[in-house]
Amino acid sequence: MTKFMDVHHGMQGITEDQLKAAHKADLALEGEEGVHFERAWADPLSGTVYCLSEAPSEEAVKRVHARAGHPVTEVHPVPLSV
Amino acid sequence: MTKFMDVHHGMQGITEDQLKAAHKADLALEGEEGVHFERAWADPLSGTVYCLSEAPSEEAVKRVHARAGHPVTEVHPVPLSV
Repeated sequence: MTKFMDVHHGMQGITEDQLKAAHKADLALEGEEGVHFERAWADPLSGTVYCLSEAPSEEAVKRVHARAGHPVTEVHPVPLSV
Repeated sequence: MTKFMDVHHGMQGITEDQLKAAHKADLALEGEEGVHFERAWADPLSGTVYCLSEAPSEEAVKRVHARAGHPVTEVHPVPLSV
């Protein structure tokens, strides 16, 4: 298992409720892929959303996000953290 | 106070000890700017470091990182989080 930071673009105007709903959709599906989405942070102005997860692979992160309806192309492993 | 995610590039090969030392240097200076650096995640392969902070402004985040020896240009407010 590795930690990943993925970055969504083009989410201008996202609300707190929409962020919560998107995270909930990820949590409902993540178990099937062995992924856990820990946190997410959003900037409605630039339309950027950062998600922190622990997952077996970059592909597993992408599959959960795609099935939850918010596909992502930018997924970065972040093996180090403080 | 707003949460910010800042992104450092070009840190290829960063080690866990270097990440800890950089975070410690931020923590030693942050109080003077009213900033708090909460977490940081690094990918040594792509050389990317993400830092999550709570701060009065983007400029305050930049000043702490610059004074700590690792200036950053990319600082994004992330007012929403789950």
